[in-house]
Amino acid sequence: MFYETRDNRHGLPHDPFKSCVVPRCIGWISSISAEGVVNLAPYSFFNAISTDPHMVAFGSGGRHPHGGKDSISNVEATGEFVCNLATFDLREQMSRTSATTAPEVDEFDYAGLEAAPATLVRPPRVRAAPIHLECVHYRTIDLPCRDPDPLARNGLVIGEVVGVHINDEILSDGMVDMSKFRPIARLGYMDYSVADNVFTMPFPD
Amino acid sequence: MFYETRDNRHGLPHDPFKSCVVPRCIGWISSISAEGVVNLAPYSFFNAISTDPHMVAFGSGGRHPHGGKDSISNVEATGEFVCNLATFDLREQMSRTSATTAPEVDEFDYAGLEAAPATLVRPPRVRAAPIHLECVHYRTIDLPCRDPDPLARNGLVIGEVVGVHINDEILSDGMVDMSKFRPIARLGYMDYSVADNVFTMPFPD
Repeated sequence: MFYETRDNRHGLPHDPFKSCVVPRCIGWISSISAEGVVNLAPYSFFNAISTDPHMVAFGSGGRHPHGGKDSISNVEATGEFVCNLATFDLREQMSRTSATTAPEVDEFDYAGLEAAPATLVRPPRVRAAPIHLECVHYRTIDLPCRDPDPLARNGLVIGEVVGVHINDEILSDGMVDMSKFRPIARLGYMDYSVADNVFTMPFPD
Repeated sequence: MFYETRDNRHGLPHDPFKSCVVPRCIGWISSISAEGVVNLAPYSFFNAISTDPHMVAFGSGGRHPHGGKDSISNVEATGEFVCNLATFDLREQMSRTSATTAPEVDEFDYAGLEAAPATLVRPPRVRAAPIHLECVHYRTIDLPCRDPDPLARNGLVIGEVVGVHINDEILSDGMVDMSKFRPIARLGYMDYSVADNVFTMPFPD
């Protein structure tokens, strides 16, 4: 099958686009508003984009039905965020933080998660997550937005990773061990995947 | 453990950063140079970044030891690319296209892959890949680059997806079926994961 996205006549029950670009790692982003309210929300339009310097990006916007838009305004207001990596053991709490809540709600409390202070930035870390990337805002790229709602906005937030926490318990022989880490990723629909089935290929000559 | 990226004193055999942001889906990008030479290279700093419009991005640059930098110059020269999605069955060919080859090498030939014409853009598709996203260049964001080599460049290429091909054989009940698709993702080191172990969580209230 083939469809053009401009008219999006795919003829399927759901737009398959999100199920095509998979698996998408989840940046579980903590941030603080100018008023000091903590926000925590998962983003699967998230990835590393550079290693030298270490940089990440996450896309936020459109008509997002499950909240999370506070992250972009918080990052722009205060210039910092933390990417907590979600794991299979934390899947329920991660999902809960994607619920639509009022801006004044602290999603750590809402999901029953304990916060831990970060080292170089103000937003807290999810203590139970085994990896945290402490980030400073580099810039936001405004993307086109088809939503006619004047409040709708589509943006890509780019941050430089300044500090990395890794729980020693997920290391084996000095390497991050997926069977201990068990990161989860977003697929399409209501589906997720666990990245603990690993295979190895050497770099080509 | 904790380390600051500015000095990168992580004390481990390898920089763990790429093994922290996982699993990373693989955009296997085909493009054409101004001279008409076809290029094909895998990028794991790749993801969807918006659904309305449908947009993707991939990061390219630094001192990339395995080639692939041709993609960014090709996209900027000709304004188009195709994201082919890599699968477990195509893992060896995908890996082969990450080898360092001269700009005049057509990686389809090099990896023994058959090309198929795209519908809306000039770069060819990997016929055996079950999903192809036909893209037009939106813009490239120049990123900071620590590599002192004057030829080094770090960029994030953003494209709008204008057409989507999905092989009907990977659909079940009108939905993309991961057990048929079997997309692979990049982990750290020389490791990959297959996203065919799926679990479901409903959207929160």
